[in-house]
Amino acid sequence: MRQTQDILKAAKEATASLSLLTTEKKNQALAAMADALCASRERILAANRQDVEAARASLGEVMIDRLTLTDARIEGMAEGIRALIDLPDPVGRVIDSHRREDGLLIEKIGVPMGVVAIIYESRPNVTSDAAALALKSGNVCVLRGGKEAYRSASAIVTAMKEGLVRVGLNENLIQLVEDTTRESATALMEAVGYVDLLIPRGGAGLIRTCVERARVPVIQTGTGICHVYVDASADLDMALSIIENAKTSRPSVCNACEVCLVHRDIADAFLPRLDERLASARAAEGKIPVVFRCDETALSLMPHGTPAGAEDFDTEFLDYILALRVVDSVDEAVSHIAAHSTGHSEAIISRDEQAIARFVGAVDSAAVYVNASTRFTDGGEFGLGCEMGISTQKLHARGPMGLCELTTYKYVIRGEGHIR
Amino acid sequence: MRQTQDILKAAKEATASLSLLTTEKKNQALAAMADALCASRERILAANRQDVEAARASLGEVMIDRLTLTDARIEGMAEGIRALIDLPDPVGRVIDSHRREDGLLIEKIGVPMGVVAIIYESRPNVTSDAAALALKSGNVCVLRGGKEAYRSASAIVTAMKEGLVRVGLNENLIQLVEDTTRESATALMEAVGYVDLLIPRGGAGLIRTCVERARVPVIQTGTGICHVYVDASADLDMALSIIENAKTSRPSVCNACEVCLVHRDIADAFLPRLDERLASARAAEGKIPVVFRCDETALSLMPHGTPAGAEDFDTEFLDYILALRVVDSVDEAVSHIAAHSTGHSEAIISRDEQAIARFVGAVDSAAVYVNASTRFTDGGEFGLGCEMGISTQKLHARGPMGLCELTTYKYVIRGEGHIR
Repeated sequence: MRQTQDILKAAKEATASLSLLTTEKKNQALAAMADALCASRERILAANRQDVEAARASLGEVMIDRLTLTDARIEGMAEGIRALIDLPDPVGRVIDSHRREDGLLIEKIGVPMGVVAIIYESRPNVTSDAAALALKSGNVCVLRGGKEAYRSASAIVTAMKEGLVRVGLNENLIQLVEDTTRESATALMEAVGYVDLLIPRGGAGLIRTCVERARVPVIQTGTGICHVYVDASADLDMALSIIENAKTSRPSVCNACEVCLVHRDIADAFLPRLDERLASARAAEGKIPVVFRCDETALSLMPHGTPAGAEDFDTEFLDYILALRVVDSVDEAVSHIAAHSTGHSEAIISRDEQAIARFVGAVDSAAVYVNASTRFTDGGEFGLGCEMGISTQKLHARGPMGLCELTTYKYVIRGEGHIR
Repeated sequence: MRQTQDILKAAKEATASLSLLTTEKKNQALAAMADALCASRERILAANRQDVEAARASLGEVMIDRLTLTDARIEGMAEGIRALIDLPDPVGRVIDSHRREDGLLIEKIGVPMGVVAIIYESRPNVTSDAAALALKSGNVCVLRGGKEAYRSASAIVTAMKEGLVRVGLNENLIQLVEDTTRESATALMEAVGYVDLLIPRGGAGLIRTCVERARVPVIQTGTGICHVYVDASADLDMALSIIENAKTSRPSVCNACEVCLVHRDIADAFLPRLDERLASARAAEGKIPVVFRCDETALSLMPHGTPAGAEDFDTEFLDYILALRVVDSVDEAVSHIAAHSTGHSEAIISRDEQAIARFVGAVDSAAVYVNASTRFTDGGEFGLGCEMGISTQKLHARGPMGLCELTTYKYVIRGEGHIR
């Protein structure tokens, strides 16, 4: 097994060759990586079957599904890589430029971070997405996936490296950490001078550990306790449709709605309809009905409501569960969100421009929606291609992280002997 | 003495009122703060005299000079605040905007960080610069200065708070930490949920401690081991003038040149002239001559050279000392810089476009100069107004940090019932 420290050294050495590649060369590499993935389908599926077999004893059905690859999923991974080819290259973009009166030209230019490390769990497509995003943004990636998916990740990385070599590039531009114990994660967190950016993707525990222990720059991703606030002025049909979408279209993802706040003035009219739509009607259609965890007022208006415990307003359910609270004003909704949100995505459903302005101005989350579902918080939906995760912190990047968010900048200043 | 924890709570509570202020109101506050500083001149000078008296026993002459206020310096602080009035407000700026084909409007809007904490040392003007930059960028600041300057900082903050109150604002928008022991610095580093951004300004020890111990987001500032590389194709007169400027115009600052790398092909012609210009000529003019720490080749060509120790290429001298090394190529210069630079500012003096492109592309520092002095790396020189420090890290901000660098963004998405 290669030592993690050796992998980090190889990654750092490879940065110089990558940062100066032309856009054309990087795009050739992406195409070759995608082709190689498809050509290696059998090898990848075989490795994945071994992972799935080994994991059956310890993982639940949802996790097994996340881990499992199919022909279609491998094709999807290749398409995800190819989608980056047409996106603008963030490296070398002129972010700002001004010439001083004395003639000195000051330009702010997008440049790669250097080495980007990603600690993630069992989804194999993260391996290809992360490698492709890193390559196009000029970064060497160090991938440290979960042990359940190691064989799959290794087969995927082998294929992508074959793609790199085919276009004459250094296979060290993509690095897979071979040690999947806790030690290797710790080594990445402490790799000062080797890791320019660490992105943990996974459960709250992993992310907390990274934030607490890392000595290298980290971007927190993912946890989403997302709120939908239904204002007194809301179009109630629109509110029903948005909440159903935000809650039930894919409950296991971070941009799903977990908490609904309803203005007292429309609670009588709205909540029984919400109960009907998300519980009775879904049950009648053979869909999974939503379970409601209600504060006292909401409970009295929701036939299928159950009483909320205090922790229900601080829980990322990732399930068909919705916490409900009745509030007296947009300000009370804003305060509730400030106290309970993870800073991911929140929505207001309203026809009152003042209430909308108040909500949009005061809610301090990565994405604030007006009359739309929180489910749009996604790199693909935002036009960024695939994404490296959704940042819930404020430093550097917020919301979906695409190519630009994986770069930094430098100032290039050109003079003709200018002195100060 | 107010507890640091209480100060942090008050700061966090004040963020909501500040983030929504209009540009006009913030500019009124800046003008009132500047006026109040000038009106409180006597009180500030008296407090400063006490600080200076108390510090005489422990601080050297340079530090005493940094600490000492005069009428002119207070006027300069007020001017620094007023200079921000005309700069664009970074809050509410539309960074990016696009409407999807389905009509969903996605906007990326500049917003304040929230609470910005600054740990700094003895220069009183940092107190007013930091408070003014934070206010204009919509952030509540928590100022934790050095104990030597506490009375001065307190008098300055009192005056600025009077300015805030005069225009009807909350005096809690500016917070001075009263405890100047190590405990309060540690409390800021660990204030998760209260401090959105921590900026240490000071010596290498403070910055290292912050990076190692902080649980809140930190931006590293300041240390500058800046290089000037004299290429084989350089205009030698220009090189002499730039090196003299970069080394001697203000040796104690972070953008001063510490190391000069000279291409072997012009070493014979250039180094004796450099020796003459920076040592003999300066001595003859009654100026402080530069001391040279030379590698073997340079030593043989520099009449006033002394041999360099290994550590001389990793030292921020902040003094009339210049380390000198002869290199065989622009690539060797780039490698030396990669191994020894702190990522602040580096310059190439060259007439060869290929060498320039190689240097600019490969040197990974905040500011890369072509035929200009490293001394321009400064918020004022870059047109940012005063600055909150010079970032030498890659995450979020790089180089001089002005108003925009103190903000983050959020996505505001407007639909008409859009669901995914």
